[in-house]
Amino acid sequence: MRALVFDSGIRLADVDEPRRGANDALLRVRLAGICNTDLEITRGYMDFRGTLGHELVADVLEADDDAWVGARVCAEINFACGECPSCEAGLGRHCPTRRVMGILGAPGCFAERVVVPQANLHRVPDHVRDEAAVFAEPLAAAFEVVEQVEPSIGERALVVGDGKLGLLCAMVLKSEGLATTLVGRHARKRAIAEASGVHAFAPELLQEGDFDLVVEATGQASGLSWSMERVRPRGTLALKSTFHGDLKLDTAKLVIDEITLLGSRCGSFERALAALSAGTVDPTPLIDAVHPLSDGVEAMARASAHGSLKHLLDARLEVGA
Amino acid sequence: MRALVFDSGIRLADVDEPRRGANDALLRVRLAGICNTDLEITRGYMDFRGTLGHELVADVLEADDDAWVGARVCAEINFACGECPSCEAGLGRHCPTRRVMGILGAPGCFAERVVVPQANLHRVPDHVRDEAAVFAEPLAAAFEVVEQVEPSIGERALVVGDGKLGLLCAMVLKSEGLATTLVGRHARKRAIAEASGVHAFAPELLQEGDFDLVVEATGQASGLSWSMERVRPRGTLALKSTFHGDLKLDTAKLVIDEITLLGSRCGSFERALAALSAGTVDPTPLIDAVHPLSDGVEAMARASAHGSLKHLLDARLEVGA
Repeated sequence: MRALVFDSGIRLADVDEPRRGANDALLRVRLAGICNTDLEITRGYMDFRGTLGHELVADVLEADDDAWVGARVCAEINFACGECPSCEAGLGRHCPTRRVMGILGAPGCFAERVVVPQANLHRVPDHVRDEAAVFAEPLAAAFEVVEQVEPSIGERALVVGDGKLGLLCAMVLKSEGLATTLVGRHARKRAIAEASGVHAFAPELLQEGDFDLVVEATGQASGLSWSMERVRPRGTLALKSTFHGDLKLDTAKLVIDEITLLGSRCGSFERALAALSAGTVDPTPLIDAVHPLSDGVEAMARASAHGSLKHLLDARLEVGA
Repeated sequence: MRALVFDSGIRLADVDEPRRGANDALLRVRLAGICNTDLEITRGYMDFRGTLGHELVADVLEADDDAWVGARVCAEINFACGECPSCEAGLGRHCPTRRVMGILGAPGCFAERVVVPQANLHRVPDHVRDEAAVFAEPLAAAFEVVEQVEPSIGERALVVGDGKLGLLCAMVLKSEGLATTLVGRHARKRAIAEASGVHAFAPELLQEGDFDLVVEATGQASGLSWSMERVRPRGTLALKSTFHGDLKLDTAKLVIDEITLLGSRCGSFERALAALSAGTVDPTPLIDAVHPLSDGVEAMARASAHGSLKHLLDARLEVGA
């Protein structure tokens, strides 16, 4: 079958069919989303080699439990062992021997078909379109901040960065009842935030400081200290960006103001799918283009261009899919 | 009166008597403790100039409320405005216009007498010796970690650094029922921790990782990344050290493992004095020497020597005190 593979470079390849093991499900991919993590991987992050991709909506072709067959699903990306102390504590996303779809030790979903543990499946409500459901994974990551911080309604939140994850975080915080501001450099992206009821400014025009919660989602090394300056004493700075390398940190500010700096990664699919189902968050304005999987190399280039938002790969457009 | 002053250098000076304003209390200092922050100030931290010192036990000479006069007290170091949103939220320690005794805009207690807001006073239980009560402020800072994290009994804690604050943090975590380990380079200091029931090792001999809570108290720039590697996924790293400058931070570890990096500073005197009163924490083994205030320059040099612990200044030994 066809797949978008990263090894020495990014290329469309003809790869072996994925093999379904015990407790696995075989999925036929409908849509897959290109994430900044995919782009970071092509720059060396995680030393991953193989089929990229971890955001998908798909149909179940085969599963141990017949009830799943034919279902339209999203899938959690961390493949946990299910038996270690982390897994037993309900933290399979932190299982030390986990594989991660398209990121660590498991083929990704930029392919016609992909295998995931059956336990990772989430059924997509019928009225949620594919183009929304494919956002379940990054939207879950945005909800993770809310799950970790448990902010109160009316608290003041600032999202720094108007990229895909920044916009999703702003939409989620707004949907949870926070007074939400976003700063970013692109008028087009700020307009998407504003359409969701988020206040949006160019960074230099932000007059307020002292936010209860600041979400750093710039993907830029300079974002951390800029964000830290906007957190109130005893407030929280959630760090969503993964970087390849070290960042500088002003520890005097952190200690004196007793800031909580929170690393935040993957989140709960339940809340993401519930928000999509209820319509409280609509991520589809983030879609820049849908490309056939066979144009994946070009799609990755487009996704990495300055100012781009979400590029989707449609695996159903393939001949023979 | 005599005071230990930092301006171009550290010197014993004859300074004006402190003036008691409305709502203030005038204290006669019994003992004052030299803290690493005092040493950092002499290296440029906070740009403070004036009488140093913020750890004390003292007698109340004058106060608006006669009930305080004659009481033996400790005093909180943050002088808050009492009227701003931070103060109204009970976070006077983060009042943006606060002065801080011997650190920011207020004369310190390395002097015969000092003025503090009456609201900052805490009565010392009669059976708590001066040599223990003078630790109320750093002990409160150690309790702050417990107040912020609210760990459960039996959780596994690691304190990195066997300096004064590290030892106090280890004693506090142990007294709160955590399985507590300390790493440090000095056999003498590790022995103090071990006498409190804390497991203590040289850093290279620590075999365990995956601690629920790690407290970074080395005061060394290299301590942060070393400590971060010992936190379990979703665990907490509390940063007690203030540095003059930036630190490097591996954000991939922070984000992927969803570590909470917590800045932690001053804490509740109530809990500190309650622990001293109950005898659940005994800081007095940390005392290296008690010096007359007039030997303060020498005492500061001794306190800054490699491997030293707590040096106290006794203001009662002064002629004319």
